[in-house]
Amino acid sequence: MDYSIIVVGDELLIGQVTDTNSGWIARNLRPYGWKTKSVKVVSDDAKEIEKAIDEAFDQTDVVLMTGGLGPTKDDITKSTLCEYFGGEMVLDEATLLNVEEVLNKRGLTMNDLNHNQAMVPSSCRVIQNRVGTAPLMWFEKDDKVLVSMPGVPFETETMMAEAVIPQLVEHFMNDKYIEYRTFVVIDYSESVLALTLADFESRLPEFVKLAYLPKPGVIRLRLSAIGDDEAEIKAAMDDLEKSLYEILGKNIIANEDKTPSEILGGLLLKHNMTLATAESCTGGNVAHTITQVAGSSAYFVGSVVSYCNGVKKNLLGVPEKVLNTEGAVSEPTVRQMSLGVSSLLGTDCAVATSGIAGPGGAVPGKPVGTVWMSAKCGDRLVTECRRFPGSRDRVIERATTHVTLMLIKLLLGE
Amino acid sequence: MDYSIIVVGDELLIGQVTDTNSGWIARNLRPYGWKTKSVKVVSDDAKEIEKAIDEAFDQTDVVLMTGGLGPTKDDITKSTLCEYFGGEMVLDEATLLNVEEVLNKRGLTMNDLNHNQAMVPSSCRVIQNRVGTAPLMWFEKDDKVLVSMPGVPFETETMMAEAVIPQLVEHFMNDKYIEYRTFVVIDYSESVLALTLADFESRLPEFVKLAYLPKPGVIRLRLSAIGDDEAEIKAAMDDLEKSLYEILGKNIIANEDKTPSEILGGLLLKHNMTLATAESCTGGNVAHTITQVAGSSAYFVGSVVSYCNGVKKNLLGVPEKVLNTEGAVSEPTVRQMSLGVSSLLGTDCAVATSGIAGPGGAVPGKPVGTVWMSAKCGDRLVTECRRFPGSRDRVIERATTHVTLMLIKLLLGE
Repeated sequence: MDYSIIVVGDELLIGQVTDTNSGWIARNLRPYGWKTKSVKVVSDDAKEIEKAIDEAFDQTDVVLMTGGLGPTKDDITKSTLCEYFGGEMVLDEATLLNVEEVLNKRGLTMNDLNHNQAMVPSSCRVIQNRVGTAPLMWFEKDDKVLVSMPGVPFETETMMAEAVIPQLVEHFMNDKYIEYRTFVVIDYSESVLALTLADFESRLPEFVKLAYLPKPGVIRLRLSAIGDDEAEIKAAMDDLEKSLYEILGKNIIANEDKTPSEILGGLLLKHNMTLATAESCTGGNVAHTITQVAGSSAYFVGSVVSYCNGVKKNLLGVPEKVLNTEGAVSEPTVRQMSLGVSSLLGTDCAVATSGIAGPGGAVPGKPVGTVWMSAKCGDRLVTECRRFPGSRDRVIERATTHVTLMLIKLLLGE
Repeated sequence: MDYSIIVVGDELLIGQVTDTNSGWIARNLRPYGWKTKSVKVVSDDAKEIEKAIDEAFDQTDVVLMTGGLGPTKDDITKSTLCEYFGGEMVLDEATLLNVEEVLNKRGLTMNDLNHNQAMVPSSCRVIQNRVGTAPLMWFEKDDKVLVSMPGVPFETETMMAEAVIPQLVEHFMNDKYIEYRTFVVIDYSESVLALTLADFESRLPEFVKLAYLPKPGVIRLRLSAIGDDEAEIKAAMDDLEKSLYEILGKNIIANEDKTPSEILGGLLLKHNMTLATAESCTGGNVAHTITQVAGSSAYFVGSVVSYCNGVKKNLLGVPEKVLNTEGAVSEPTVRQMSLGVSSLLGTDCAVATSGIAGPGGAVPGKPVGTVWMSAKCGDRLVTECRRFPGSRDRVIERATTHVTLMLIKLLLGE
């Protein structure tokens, strides 16, 4: 099934806000075999919105709409939808109660603007917004469905996952069984992975689809199956998962959709081990990425960002001689950085980075992008040097992911 | 002048890539008084592209198109444009040379796919892509203009800034003078700032526009002027800048479009001072944000991320008694963290954070989002406690910006 997305909001057209909802929707509906036909971003203007709905229904029976529902937006979108689908604006008591409850949780009280949010077109079915004050609205007309949702990504994502996706599935495929499995793969480029899996892919049952979802440093493989017979699908997916592990072996570092930091966190918890980082060129980004994971305080002890050589020497014990002869961007430096921080903070594991993020700082033999990295796990320690392409941000990002993967491999016992 | 944006690419519709080009284009054309009428994202499909062009020309005379030009895309976009605007596909020698040159710089040699990139519709004028292999194409038909650009953000942004914007200006407003000035404002909500500037705004000359561009923790104000007389515009802008400083005073922390980290870096360089960070709940993100700025090694010495209390005690000198009685999230803890890291790493300035990023970790009297922060500059030291709303990521982000602004204010001599 194809659907169209309409994104409403002047703030998007002036480039103040980037639309991430349409990508989220696409990624989360794809496992059901549903595809985005087009995305149209329009302003908070009744005529523009009407035209966009006409165009969208012209090409698909389902339209998903985000934005244009904030309390200060003068309700353009809501009244336009009322005009479009018929009926009149009515006060919905359940919505009023919900708005009050959401405001209470935030320690706020109702004002006139919020009160207006409980006014909805009589032609829609309201889906209560558990995490915000703008109600979701489900419209139907001649076998066509339009769902209007708030624009705040947290609200859209929460309510899509909790209510809209289940209701779309119920409405359009209520007797189907759906399952998907995701695998995180490392040390493959997308094209080489596609070649490696060409045979596997050609033998996939008709009801199973394989998607490649690359992220810097890893590729996520997603198998999605849809059909009538749950037992048949489960058995087929088990077989396919087994085949994938036979083909890719240790290159699969997780069989669920997790970031490298989440995978690392899970492994540290499992082995009851602690972690510290010593960072030069990544400047704290490895620690930041690790602590983005809720609950990371159970294994992450701390970090020393040694941006200048004095800190590398005094806190991490990198010998002055090494810094003078081999330089800060060198194998012995990152080796000692990981040993030093692990001993200073008393951890089982440690990672270290030292490199040239650019745009300045290149020296003969060490161009911008050169990064030495080290990972230590108990008595085992590995070091690697890479040259990452791209901007300063990208070099920092890539080095962060790479050193995280180095420690994951150590923990997986390579 | 209004324009439409068409974004071509299956990778956007499946949610693998997020469109940031349309926002960039909107932000960078707004100073000229030009507005995005709509953004449409379509797949790599001739019919879809044609329909989108028809719809776009229906509403605006200018269409900016990004994407669909990669060497593996089977040239759908290029041949569709050739079909649409007439003419035939021809080899463009200048483009061929350019592709060769770009590949050489990357240490690559030409293959068949790259060779095809030098084939262009005879109906277009080519704008050479200095930073990529896909040529930009400028089409004109009945007073309408369509510019087709590559989809890679770095290429789009570079070539828009260097060539497309100047050529659009030349084509549509060749005798106009344009100037804009940006001011970074702190400690105002957008609505209170709008009220404060209501009188200022009502007295703006007709040729000047004021835009509010909020980011977490700061609001950027942008004055843009367009007209025939350069001297008149410059004088008016000088007056307006003076008025803004009279109204907002110290709440303006910069008169150019810079991030808080960039502003902080500039002040540290100016005062010849060094900086360290001591981070608990921000987990390295303050250091990361500071080191995202190229050249930050001139003032940033390093950081101690003290995620567990042992590190706060042993490395930063927070007394065990304070940790036991007041807790890690407390005024005396962050005070000592900034003093401790400044003394440990030998810096003039320091910032420190300790809080509850969530979703777990709340204790009675200290709900999720509670963050104590401290900034030290020479002998002066300030502390503040805030409760930031939102998710873990957002609490970390807000605390990072807030503590950066605290130090900026100290450096500005408040």
